[in-house]
Formats: sequence, structure tokens, C-alpha cells
Amino acid sequence: MLITLTTDFGTQDGYVGVMKGVMADIMPGVTFVDISHAVPPQDVRAAAYLLWTALPYFPAESIHLVVVDPGVGTARRPLASRTPWGLLVGPDNGVFSYVWAVAPPEMTVELTNPAYRQSALSSTFHGRDIFAPAAAYLARGVPLENFGALVAEPVRLSLPHLELDEGALKGEVLYVDHFGNAITSIGRLIWEGAFLHLDAAFGELSPLLLRADSLRVVVAEHNLGPVRRTYGEVASGAPLALVGSEGMLELAVSHGHGATVLGLQVGDEVQVLVG
Amino acid sequence: MLITLTTDFGTQDGYVGVMKGVMADIMPGVTFVDISHAVPPQDVRAAAYLLWTALPYFPAESIHLVVVDPGVGTARRPLASRTPWGLLVGPDNGVFSYVWAVAPPEMTVELTNPAYRQSALSSTFHGRDIFAPAAAYLARGVPLENFGALVAEPVRLSLPHLELDEGALKGEVLYVDHFGNAITSIGRLIWEGAFLHLDAAFGELSPLLLRADSLRVVVAEHNLGPVRRTYGEVASGAPLALVGSEGMLELAVSHGHGATVLGLQVGDEVQVLVG
Amino acid sequence: MLITLTTDFGTQDGYVGVMKGVMADIMPGVTFVDISHAVPPQDVRAAAYLLWTALPYFPAESIHLVVVDPGVGTARRPLASRTPWGLLVGPDNGVFSYVWAVAPPEMTVELTNPAYRQSALSSTFHGRDIFAPAAAYLARGVPLENFGALVAEPVRLSLPHLELDEGALKGEVLYVDHFGNAITSIGRLIWEGAFLHLDAAFGELSPLLLRADSLRVVVAEHNLGPVRRTYGEVASGAPLALVGSEGMLELAVSHGHGATVLGLQVGDEVQVLVG
Repeated sequence: MLITLTTDFGTQDGYVGVMKGVMADIMPGVTFVDISHAVPPQDVRAAAYLLWTALPYFPAESIHLVVVDPGVGTARRPLASRTPWGLLVGPDNGVFSYVWAVAPPEMTVELTNPAYRQSALSSTFHGRDIFAPAAAYLARGVPLENFGALVAEPVRLSLPHLELDEGALKGEVLYVDHFGNAITSIGRLIWEGAFLHLDAAFGELSPLLLRADSLRVVVAEHNLGPVRRTYGEVASGAPLALVGSEGMLELAVSHGHGATVLGLQVGDEVQVLVG
Repeated sequence: MLITLTTDFGTQDGYVGVMKGVMADIMPGVTFVDISHAVPPQDVRAAAYLLWTALPYFPAESIHLVVVDPGVGTARRPLASRTPWGLLVGPDNGVFSYVWAVAPPEMTVELTNPAYRQSALSSTFHGRDIFAPAAAYLARGVPLENFGALVAEPVRLSLPHLELDEGALKGEVLYVDHFGNAITSIGRLIWEGAFLHLDAAFGELSPLLLRADSLRVVVAEHNLGPVRRTYGEVASGAPLALVGSEGMLELAVSHGHGATVLGLQVGDEVQVLVG
Repeated sequence: MLITLTTDFGTQDGYVGVMKGVMADIMPGVTFVDISHAVPPQDVRAAAYLLWTALPYFPAESIHLVVVDPGVGTARRPLASRTPWGLLVGPDNGVFSYVWAVAPPEMTVELTNPAYRQSALSSTFHGRDIFAPAAAYLARGVPLENFGALVAEPVRLSLPHLELDEGALKGEVLYVDHFGNAITSIGRLIWEGAFLHLDAAFGELSPLLLRADSLRVVVAEHNLGPVRRTYGEVASGAPLALVGSEGMLELAVSHGHGATVLGLQVGDEVQVLVG
């Protein structure tokens, strides 16, 4: 059985190790895989993006533990959710929104059963006291319904901005990776299921069409030209747009830190124009 | 079988991977959990603190490998120690002191048996050549007494400062985590067993009493007021004291890096005053 | 079965986790060990060095996945190679050169069989789409020859500079670790097999002789004196040379960051002189 971990805890202070200790104590022999412990602090949207890109590559019976939890100690609910991409465990703050958009939840419950928690709860470390025990008991096969009552309407983030407006395809910067690539909401391979209202339009914007020479990508007053196939198509230091490994339009600078050079931040609008 | 690792090696240069390779070669199938590889370089006290917070959450039969070892290559002894919190392997420099204070050693030996070391010892990387092999052979079930002679008096650090003086409870900053929270020696949930001479006093300073509105926390000329329940009780940017996830008094700044804003360092005195 | 990972991906963005997900999906129960994910970006030579230092400590049947791949998306070939130090999987850019110099490849193939790849290949993330699947199928026991055609002449880096010239032993800085130690190409324990033309000379330069008081180490106009046994032989802040844990001559500063203090970079010449 495999449990992944995604947090904003860093790896310096032992918090991640403690969660693994709790889980190994409940479910010996479980395998841990770290997705990231360097989610920007309390950045629920960045965590939602990372989960959406990573989870489809794991075995479908995996358990995904997520602790990016600015509301710890408040009334926000702790959740577990069964989806086609595995069992999700984490706070009710929308962190699973992007996953749910393409892998809809089959059952979501609130983690309230005291049998599956630490006996003494801290108000600041529910990763250790609530979420890690829940993940480990799920790995032991405890049925989801035993953890607590059904949650009909978990918190959901708005989906990333993406629209067709007067021939322009408008999206936004979703995430900046540590190479400086600015990954945008413009892409179709996976998102199409989530943007049903755009389906017809996206049917015409296939990846091949997105690469048409007649298109140009514009962001923050930079014209990046057509969508390229490789970094090598532009000179070193020049900006470009290409379809990244997740099938999304990415903005980059050849041999440079794209987001810094282009002055881009998460949420910035990006457009694909014809001609 | 589970082996945890705590070092100041960082994860850049492959040193941690090498230790895992050595162990996997001796004991195939062992599970590794990293507690931290970002202990401040050669900071034995910080490592002692991290172990004390983390180890109680692991299975009691775990093996805990610790290499924070400023004395590598000198005459300092390599040790293994059996405790109620698992088997400990590391240098004789006091790094296990805080664990031993609450989980007393049942047997401690010096690692001298050449059968359980690399055949050629470097003078700078005993993690690879002595400690990792010892941990792996312990995981294979080699009895502790086979590794070398008993050590009656291993090096012990002084316990953190903590005293009751004219009604003031005085402690010190023990550790600053990567969020900037300054964790202090003031707490009772676990330390009481280690501070036997203060037991009577601590009996009256239960967590509930510590939260009395009539108390105030003072550090470095900052009056942090009473002990709060959550960060939300003060304005964003304001300092506060609260009981953290390890049951210790923590000094923080809401939405800020407490230690930096308050100018705190490990060892600084903190006081809890009445009125 | 054990798979190690060495990349320049960092651990922030989930790329490493995704590769592990892909492998766990193909080969459940496999054990992962991270060697480093902080190889300097696209620094094939640094990765070659790290692999050469780390791989001999792993079980010989391990699989070593390496993705430091500046040529991703170009015509560079993806490889797998069987060696006495285990199975190697990575790009054909010379990253295995130093390992091959002492653990010669028994068979090397190009990874072309579509049965052992992701069905849709990205042009930027072959770690996920080609290399991770190959490593996992190798772990499942798929024979090397099933992956593709033999590669007779994989790309090889030149070996590190090392020569005897008019009584001076001349080498170069190979790697700077995160402590600031500058590790050089001067050493004999392992390299002698790779430098056959120097064998006779090296036979006389045994580690004991290298420590002779009559030698002195010179780098970038700094005279570091004879080769020391421990850091403690010089004053705090003073530079020194010593034989490091890999059996190579290292340049350091006691209690300091040697490479910074001495102004050293990878490739700088270092000499050992008599008298």
C-alpha cells in the first residue's frame, strides 16, 4: 500500500518524519512517496495544482495525504474522499478541487471518529493528530464510512480562469515551477472534462491547432510568438511558449528563469491570439 | 523494520543516499524514514531536540540513526543504545540526552566490533562506515551486546533551562523551526518526568492554568500577554505565545517569522509571570 | 528490489514524486532511495561524479535511475546499461562515464521499445515518460535486450584531468560539496583502474606516500602544505588538504566554506609537489 504526502512543512523540522512515524505505527510496511513538502506556505491553490498534475501517475488504489492547512485549529472540517485517482485525505479548504474536477468524488466524509485519531489533539498539527492516522487506517482497510458523516458540499476553489472571448483564448498563470516555467491554465488534454461549457470550442483547439504558426501568445505585454515545440527554437535568453509535460501551455525563457525575466506571477492573464 | 535518519548532511551531495545503500546492502527490505537532514551544521542540541519531539511517534521497535557528529575522526565513541523509544545509533556527544531524560537507556554499548563496520574506515564519514552498518545489523537482529563493551556514562547535555524563581517560571528558547516559531523549554506534558525536582511546582502549572488570563509571557523585553489558544486571537503581525503541538510554550508572530521579528535566538530566556 | 534516483529536478514541484508514482504503478513494492535531486541544473559532470561515489555502496542488483538531461527532446538516445555496479538508466550524455571507467558496461541498449514507455511522450519530461518506466520494468525482470538495440559507443565524458608532469602530480577540482569541500581528481583507491597509463606511477603514490611530510598541495596560488589527517591539525579558519571519505584529495578550510574562501571552482588545477 502506497501513501503519498504533500505539505508546506518543509523537511527541516521533522514534522514530515513524525507523520510517517504515526502512519508506520498504525500500518507497518506501508510505502511512503513524497510529492512535495515545499508547497508555498498555506498556498492551497498551488497544492491543488500539484495534486492534479501528480495523482494520475500513481496506482489508483493509493492514498494521498495533503496538509496545506491555513485553517488548522478553526472549524474547517478534516476530510477523506474516494475518487477514481485514489483516496484523498486532507482539510476541507478546496485543495482537492482540481482533482475532483476531472476525477469526481464518489464519497467524501468528515474525519470525526475518535477511534481513528490521536487521543490528544493539538490545535496546530492536525497532520500528525488527524490526517496521518486517517491515511494509515484507510491503508489498513477501514471503510471510508466508518470515519464520519457524509459531506455533501465540500469547499471547492473556482477553477482556473479559461475563456474564449472574441477569438482570443484567455487563461492565467497557474503555477511557477522551480525552473521558472510559468504553467498556464491553457491546455486541453485533461481540462476538457472540467470545462464542459468550453468543450465545443476546445474541440477545435486541439494540440495540433494550438501549434499553428498563425497563433501568437501574449502575456504582460510580451509577445512570445507562436507555440514552439522545443526550447531550442529560440535563441538563448529569448522568451517562448510551449506545451509542457502536463499538456498545458507554458511560458519560459530559454536557459533562463522565465517567470523572473518576464515578470510573471500566479494569476497573470495570458492570451492566445490568431494572427 | 524501520530505520529513521537524522543528520546535518543536507540532501545535495548523496551522503544520505550512500548511507541508505550501505544499509540496504546489509538488510534488504528495510524501510527508511527521514526525520531531518537539515539539522543546523554540527548543532548537537538542535538534533537532541528534534529526536525528542519525533521519536515517541514511531513504532517502539524502530532504529534511529543519528549523525550530527562534530567529533568525527577524534576519540569520541560511536554508540548504540536500547530505550523504550527504540534503538538509538550515533556518536557519544549527548545527542540522545533529551530522549534519555524521558526514555532512559536500558543498555548502551560502544560500536567497536569490526564485524559490523566497513572494513576500511574513513576519518570523516563514520555515518557510512560505522553508524549505518550498525543500524542495519541491529535491524537484522544482531544483539546489542555483540557490538562492543557497555558504556556506563555516555556524554549527556545539560537539560534545557527551566526553573521557578520568585513566582516567575523561567525557561529558554530551545529551537526555532522553519516557520520562525521559537519553541521554549516551558511545558509539562512530557518534560515533567525529566525535571523531577520541579514536579510539585509543575503539578500546579497544568496546561489549563498556563492558559490563565492572569499570566503573561515576557521575552527579550517583549510582553506577549497571556498564553493564547490560536494565532487568530491576535492581529496579523502581532506577537503571541501559545502552547504548540509538542505541548511546549511557543513564541510566534501571527502571519510572520516570529524569531526574526522578535529578535530571538536559541538560549534566550523566556519568563511566564503572574499578573 | 531497490531503485535509486539522481536528478536535477529539485523536490519542490512534484516531478520526483511523479516518477515514483509511475514506477510504483508498474512495479508495486519497489523501494526508492534518493541519491540527490539537487544536482546543479544540467550539470552532467557533477552527476557523473555523484554516481561514481555513491553506487559502489548499493546492492549490486540495484537499478539506478538518472535524469540530468539537458538534451531532452533532442535526438540524444535514452539508455539502459548493465554493469558490475547495477543497472543504469538515463540519457546518453556521458553521465555514466565515471562509473563505466571502473565498472565497465556489460551491455548497453537504447530504450526504444514502446511497450516499456508511456504511450504519449512529452518532449520535456522523459524522466516520467521513458526513464522511470524503463527502470520499473527492469525491476520487474524484463531482460535488458528487450528494451531496444545494442549501443556500442555511448557518449563518454573525458576522464578528470590527472597527470604526472616533472615530478608534480596535477589534477583538477571535480566537485564542491555543500560543506564547501573541493574534491579533486587526485586519489588512487578507485581511480587506478581507470587510469591504466598511470598505474606504475600511482603504485608509488600510495595513500601513505601521499601523506608524506615532504609533499605540499598547491591550488590557485594557495600553498596548503602537506596532506593532513584531520581538520584539527590546522587552526580554525586555515586552509588544508586531506584525503576525504571517497579516498580523494580534498581542499578545505577548517570551520569554513573552503571553496569560497579559497576561490575555487570545478575544473581548477590542483598540484601535489615534492619539497
